[in-house]
Amino acid sequence: MSELTSLVPEASYVAIDTEFTGLGKRYEAVSIFDNMEQRYQKLKTIVQRYSVIQFGLSVFNVLGEDRLECQTFTFYTFPSAANVDFVVSVPTATFLIRNQFSFDKLIQTGLHYMKRKEEIAFREKMDKVEELEPVTDISEKDTQFLEATKAIIDDWIDKGATNPHITQELSPFRRRLVYQLLRESYPFIWAENTRNAGNSPLILIHIGSNEETIIQSFKQKKKEEKIEKAIGFRKVIDLLALAKVPIVGHNMLLDLLFIYEHYLEPLPATYLEFRSSILDLFPVLIDTKYIAEFLVDPAAPLQSTVLQDLFVELKRYPEVVKIKSINSTAHPYTPEKLRPHNAGYDSWMTGSVFAHLCHREAIPFDTIPTEKRILNQIYLTTGQTHLNLHAEDSEAVFYL
Amino acid sequence: MSELTSLVPEASYVAIDTEFTGLGKRYEAVSIFDNMEQRYQKLKTIVQRYSVIQFGLSVFNVLGEDRLECQTFTFYTFPSAANVDFVVSVPTATFLIRNQFSFDKLIQTGLHYMKRKEEIAFREKMDKVEELEPVTDISEKDTQFLEATKAIIDDWIDKGATNPHITQELSPFRRRLVYQLLRESYPFIWAENTRNAGNSPLILIHIGSNEETIIQSFKQKKKEEKIEKAIGFRKVIDLLALAKVPIVGHNMLLDLLFIYEHYLEPLPATYLEFRSSILDLFPVLIDTKYIAEFLVDPAAPLQSTVLQDLFVELKRYPEVVKIKSINSTAHPYTPEKLRPHNAGYDSWMTGSVFAHLCHREAIPFDTIPTEKRILNQIYLTTGQTHLNLHAEDSEAVFYL
Repeated sequence: MSELTSLVPEASYVAIDTEFTGLGKRYEAVSIFDNMEQRYQKLKTIVQRYSVIQFGLSVFNVLGEDRLECQTFTFYTFPSAANVDFVVSVPTATFLIRNQFSFDKLIQTGLHYMKRKEEIAFREKMDKVEELEPVTDISEKDTQFLEATKAIIDDWIDKGATNPHITQELSPFRRRLVYQLLRESYPFIWAENTRNAGNSPLILIHIGSNEETIIQSFKQKKKEEKIEKAIGFRKVIDLLALAKVPIVGHNMLLDLLFIYEHYLEPLPATYLEFRSSILDLFPVLIDTKYIAEFLVDPAAPLQSTVLQDLFVELKRYPEVVKIKSINSTAHPYTPEKLRPHNAGYDSWMTGSVFAHLCHREAIPFDTIPTEKRILNQIYLTTGQTHLNLHAEDSEAVFYL
Repeated sequence: MSELTSLVPEASYVAIDTEFTGLGKRYEAVSIFDNMEQRYQKLKTIVQRYSVIQFGLSVFNVLGEDRLECQTFTFYTFPSAANVDFVVSVPTATFLIRNQFSFDKLIQTGLHYMKRKEEIAFREKMDKVEELEPVTDISEKDTQFLEATKAIIDDWIDKGATNPHITQELSPFRRRLVYQLLRESYPFIWAENTRNAGNSPLILIHIGSNEETIIQSFKQKKKEEKIEKAIGFRKVIDLLALAKVPIVGHNMLLDLLFIYEHYLEPLPATYLEFRSSILDLFPVLIDTKYIAEFLVDPAAPLQSTVLQDLFVELKRYPEVVKIKSINSTAHPYTPEKLRPHNAGYDSWMTGSVFAHLCHREAIPFDTIPTEKRILNQIYLTTGQTHLNLHAEDSEAVFYL
């Protein structure tokens, strides 16, 4: 993650791809006769039902007129363990498994994510814990428990408290009592909970100083760490939004909708609101499917605009653009080791296809963000052939 | 499967357990104040939303007054690849993965299943294929294709046709043409399709005889094989229903609902209809949670009626009942190799607990099917303490 923090803002462009858990029957209802608002409403229902489970990111740097360098990252993302449902369409599950996707790995190691509004609620909840009314009516048994705990803590401090102290398993109520004890008598001890529900031990850490400012900054840091962890994968999306680098996708409308709904905010009520929000976040969007379909010189057409076909066809001329994949430390592989339909691999193909297309269509790399022909022109799979995010209103787009 | 066909009807009793993909938030709505009809409606909504993904079956045979033998089977079941959604609650997914369940294995190797009504529709569809109107308007290109195909088939027959012949990839229309050619000119050749949609080759098999009766019985056999494969796991449930052996579960109401809805028929409109249907199918149901909660001698109560706790507590007296697990050929493991929350393992624990409880409560094994105290008394998790399937109507059950 820290690697990306330095990489992304320096990038010439990034390419993205997502894998999601399905489109389902509802996708068949998207019609050639829909206007953009109708299409948006239909897609929104689909996007809300399914999840994004893999996010691929390839960071491209132009080194010279015909040389680029690229680093590729694949992230598994899985909803946090709240009481929500995870919906997978059966054909999608079978398709992904055939393409070596692992649902076991997803559930075991997938990064959680938290929308911006959820983060605000989470911060408020953390503040509230500190403001809990002190318990005053303490039973004799609990008083004995607190006395014993005090003795253990004092003993631990006497011995230097160099290592964290792990308490016995405590009920939620007893954890609350210990928090209260610490606030009242040991402000220089930080307590960390290992689980939120049921019985669990607390981990006690001696902050190492009695000074108010040091204690406060230690606690603030710990709180931020906890929040960062909960935000999880959304940090990557925040990073992309902050850097405002060109974002390249292939047939990217669904990717954008899934990213918005699952990592950022619930999708807005209308298409026009979505359009303005997505451009606020990512002002430079480029769709290679659009370029391949509509901008390529008709005198030398491409055989197919399917991503893999494009990749193979354009790669045949390696003398034109040279792209070097380099390992990242966190993701120790180059895309060549992966396979199509891995989001990282597909983002790498997309970014490579884009580089080749730029060369072929004489789009200089340094003018990408201002290149009107390709800027924010998003391909539409059926019906409207593409979506001009700059159009006056949603009715102003073209129809097949 | 064929192993079960001979095992199940001979069994003294079978124990079952299922793993399903969730209960979700809706389960919290099941209330202590619900009558049985209300509870049924709430549970039905839950059961329709989620899926059964593992079915455990342990077949017990009483060898003597205090000796039993047991074989355990674990089946993964996954919906067939139609355009349906597979819903998993996130906490359930995490829980199952922690207990070594593999979703990858489920999707890759899970047995499909087909409800009885779906089987009827499937049979009708297969008959229809044979009754398709012959194509008469055949293009020149297709005529050439048919001529070439004929030549290939004749050549294959000339050479003895001992091995199946695999054609090139054919479009659905061309497959239809080949079927037509075979019906008209080669009735003694059986063609098998490898996929139903898109392009795929046909596998041709020479039946080995020109005699009408042999050809017809060959074709009938092939058709039945195809139907059997589509029925898939439901065969096991059919087998249980046919054998009418006592079926033992632990806290088994949800198991019964999931089995009914997913493997057999959509759940009936009302609880009373469900009750009569389930007893038609499985006239001898026994719930070990009910026995442990309500029939155990109050002078020597059990410490807990949670399945694992019961199993550990009752196993402490191995001199009372001896249960020998034997390997089955298809499932080459004994339950000891598995873990709790594997459906096979849990069915084995359930059946073992039942044997111990019978001994403890002086229920002779040979009177099980007529033992009124335990027959069709199903435990209820909250609210009503148990469900008497023999009660006059759904209002006649007890309340806490």
